[in-house]
Amino acid sequence: MEIRVVNLQEKAGLVKELHQYKLIAELNDYQLKLVRAKREFVWHSHPETDELFYVVEGKMKLALRDRIFELKEGELIVVPKGVEHRPVCETECTVMLMEPKGTLNTGDAGGPLTDAHLEWI
Amino acid sequence: MEIRVVNLQEKAGLVKELHQYKLIAELNDYQLKLVRAKREFVWHSHPETDELFYVVEGKMKLALRDRIFELKEGELIVVPKGVEHRPVCETECTVMLMEPKGTLNTGDAGGPLTDAHLEWI
Repeated sequence: MEIRVVNLQEKAGLVKELHQYKLIAELNDYQLKLVRAKREFVWHSHPETDELFYVVEGKMKLALRDRIFELKEGELIVVPKGVEHRPVCETECTVMLMEPKGTLNTGDAGGPLTDAHLEWI
Repeated sequence: MEIRVVNLQEKAGLVKELHQYKLIAELNDYQLKLVRAKREFVWHSHPETDELFYVVEGKMKLALRDRIFELKEGELIVVPKGVEHRPVCETECTVMLMEPKGTLNTGDAGGPLTDAHLEWI
């Protein structure tokens, strides 16, 4: 990918479909992905990596086993490696994920929501 | 650092001093830092790592040897490893940097603007 300026709101506006991961930037072996979501995701963890969530549009809940964080636009959270979590978007939200290349959305849980497909926008 | 929600605008509002780097999150061995700036920085590169800039408040110019990018609030850019660059904030701006721990602000250039001090906010 050439060097370019990425406007997060603009990119979020390009994502029309739900639950499809879009690549917006790479930093060494890390990827920044956007996803528009409206769902209760599966409980899972990533035994090998921390994971960053940043809310670009709307709001989301990030459930851990012992508490629930509520994030609104402009807020981020880092889930440490190995910590079980479950993202929930009750209304449509657009979230930026940051994590190493190859990190699976469903982590160690697998199942039908697993989706490794990724395309640049 | 405990797991916490980080509001970027809120954190930016806490940074009063110019040119002091503040740590707001860590993701594996990467750090997210905030800095309020009003200066023309030195030309430098990071031979060992890409570097991400995200404008939280205001606007900045990011000069490469062959072109200048202009970034405003909500926009990010990744400078690939080894590419010479020079961030310029003509007016006060607050920028989030993302890069591996230990990445020096002045990269391979060194000099009086080098600042490895970092504190959590």
